[in-house]
Amino acid sequence: MTDTSSPESPENTEAPGLSRRRLLGTAGAAGAAGLALGAVGGAGVAAAVNSDGEGPAALTSVGATEVMFHVKHQAGITTPLQSRGHLIAFDLAPGAGRKEATALLRRWSHVAKQLMAGRSLAGDDTEVARDAGPSSLTLTFGFGRTFFDRTGLTAQRPMELDPLPDFSSDHLDPRRSNGDLWVQIGADDALVAFHALRAVQKEAGEAARVRWQMNGFNRSPGATASPMTTRNLMGQVDGTGNPKPSEPDFDKRIFVPESGRPAGQEWMAGGSYAVVRRIRMLLDDWEKLPRGDQEAVIGRRKKDGAPLTGGDEFTEPDLAKAGPDGQLVIAADAHSRISAPEQNGGAAMLRRPFSYHDGISADGTPDAGLLFICWQADPLRGFVPVQRKLDRGDALSRFIRHEASGLFAVPGGPGEGEYVGQRLLEG
Amino acid sequence: MTDTSSPESPENTEAPGLSRRRLLGTAGAAGAAGLALGAVGGAGVAAAVNSDGEGPAALTSVGATEVMFHVKHQAGITTPLQSRGHLIAFDLAPGAGRKEATALLRRWSHVAKQLMAGRSLAGDDTEVARDAGPSSLTLTFGFGRTFFDRTGLTAQRPMELDPLPDFSSDHLDPRRSNGDLWVQIGADDALVAFHALRAVQKEAGEAARVRWQMNGFNRSPGATASPMTTRNLMGQVDGTGNPKPSEPDFDKRIFVPESGRPAGQEWMAGGSYAVVRRIRMLLDDWEKLPRGDQEAVIGRRKKDGAPLTGGDEFTEPDLAKAGPDGQLVIAADAHSRISAPEQNGGAAMLRRPFSYHDGISADGTPDAGLLFICWQADPLRGFVPVQRKLDRGDALSRFIRHEASGLFAVPGGPGEGEYVGQRLLEG
Repeated sequence: MTDTSSPESPENTEAPGLSRRRLLGTAGAAGAAGLALGAVGGAGVAAAVNSDGEGPAALTSVGATEVMFHVKHQAGITTPLQSRGHLIAFDLAPGAGRKEATALLRRWSHVAKQLMAGRSLAGDDTEVARDAGPSSLTLTFGFGRTFFDRTGLTAQRPMELDPLPDFSSDHLDPRRSNGDLWVQIGADDALVAFHALRAVQKEAGEAARVRWQMNGFNRSPGATASPMTTRNLMGQVDGTGNPKPSEPDFDKRIFVPESGRPAGQEWMAGGSYAVVRRIRMLLDDWEKLPRGDQEAVIGRRKKDGAPLTGGDEFTEPDLAKAGPDGQLVIAADAHSRISAPEQNGGAAMLRRPFSYHDGISADGTPDAGLLFICWQADPLRGFVPVQRKLDRGDALSRFIRHEASGLFAVPGGPGEGEYVGQRLLEG
Repeated sequence: MTDTSSPESPENTEAPGLSRRRLLGTAGAAGAAGLALGAVGGAGVAAAVNSDGEGPAALTSVGATEVMFHVKHQAGITTPLQSRGHLIAFDLAPGAGRKEATALLRRWSHVAKQLMAGRSLAGDDTEVARDAGPSSLTLTFGFGRTFFDRTGLTAQRPMELDPLPDFSSDHLDPRRSNGDLWVQIGADDALVAFHALRAVQKEAGEAARVRWQMNGFNRSPGATASPMTTRNLMGQVDGTGNPKPSEPDFDKRIFVPESGRPAGQEWMAGGSYAVVRRIRMLLDDWEKLPRGDQEAVIGRRKKDGAPLTGGDEFTEPDLAKAGPDGQLVIAADAHSRISAPEQNGGAAMLRRPFSYHDGISADGTPDAGLLFICWQADPLRGFVPVQRKLDRGDALSRFIRHEASGLFAVPGGPGEGEYVGQRLLEG
């Protein structure tokens, strides 16, 4: 965080870290449009609105919405889906240990706090996000299983980070899987997200090296007037069954409880476990399938996501219902039947994905699909039982391929003055 | 375009092609926010606004803005930059000729007209864009040099499509360069853009094969309140010198005149030539450069894009001005000096790029930069002289690498009832 800017630059006459904030104005958040964006709770959402009357007041809630850094749970878990996302995993550099990791998490936390508030970084900011508002930027930090041995923190490693079981349909590339450290970046502006990604990479410095990096996207705010859940690149409404923060057991299912942790693992209180899967969609095959067959694979109508047994997207599917031919209306291998919580002992996870599209593969097929990210208090009561069942008999499995996988412990949000992971690293 | 949807689908009870339009409502365009988005003229911009009072009225101008298909010049040239873009080039399939190309342009034009109006495609729509508004979608179609021999239209090939000269700094990959046919897709919603891309690919059918495909992005509408030109991934304000539609010679510089074409080439009246360059930015090197050095390379201030000789972004640079040390303030090799129109015999082109970021390369550096697209009535009076000069002495050339190149003849917009390229293919 040293100031490498040249003395010639007029930029230096501004207080470090204040330039973008000053440019945008700092009007109060009350009643700002950002609050209406449908936050699903948990993360605090405020908004800074341009009110200085200079220039065209074109900063809408898209740019003005600010997500808080110091909150109970890290941002980027219950924050509404952003239109742009980056995932990046690092391995600690050879020779780097707990000391270097601690300094890195301090630097990353500083960067996250500054950028999420729409501020520039002192001195060496790339300026890619200059002129833009915070744009709902979130940075979310997690630790992979391998982090703990390398930092002498083996006793603090939660059993929830034990490797995921192998699934028979996995085609995992280890070079794009796991990692010591993981950062999820989301924003409603692509340049704001890219700016944060480069800052995270830069701060890694000599302490950590990039292991893999992926880019994703979701629908833009304001592109739809529909109250329905968003769609994926197969055209399916995706995410209907997600637990809702208003449900009484939401916190219990998604976040690690504040108390009752095994000794040494109190640091995960308020945290959550992220399972990350790069799921390629075999779109050339899928799109050739007639719509009725697609709907049978999913068990839902393509048009509106309603169960094939009727109603609308949010109607409970009637899994026992048979048609005139005596066959189940929602087939035994339909994706929505197999993944339903009631079929999995109530297993629940909060899915918060990004779509991805990396152009065309060497074989001519689209390299596109879902950066599936799900959040849960315990992967063994969330992702694992559901994926086990899908692995055995999901009609959708012919059209998708799990190509990479990661499991990360994402600690609770840092208190005022704290950095992310402080309770682990200094615990 | 056959209807492959199953008889079970309630979708079939809707008139083909009307479902999304009905969902969104079709209120009049007058005074709609879409008109305030800063259209730079040329392409007609209207807006369909959700006014049916159903559901949360969250369709903002981001989703509601509709760009017209039947206009004098094709959409996507003077249309405001969209936040998401796809470029895709095709080669005609072996055995395919003029007949197949004609049918393909008919199909593509139908798709473009439907999707740009926010309508679904009949029967076999993937539904990825369902629920969304048109979101400023544009599809723009062009012909590469190789198209003409393959379709027996050699006599109609304009000399403007003669190969670009070699530049000493080029590192061009022929597999990602040129092509018989080129389609540019832009939209302010990533799913709307992807939906259009897949539709274009599907309609290519047996007639044409994908040669290359690239993805890009720009800032989201509403992410900034600044009146400044957008920034690129180096953090520089980029596009300041662009000609403006309000300038008296804009049309003459950017579009092929309506009359006076050589015999056989009347079909390009109202058209434009697109030069497409994938320009990689060597960001690891660039970001290490102190800000003052970056500003010397460009000849402009990073903060606001103003010339180093003073003023604001739109102040004319004083190219003769020397500092107290007797040296030119804007260095002899500064990018902005060398690319200035007055240094290139008034050569003018309309730059309308997307940034790109395809993750991390095998060598660990970011695979990111600019999908540079420029438009001109004649490449020899636009791109070529400027690039020749940059090639010889641009201080920026150490930090960029031209990796792919294409040159395409983009005919004028189709008249009502016409398809794109009809005047070539049936002329």
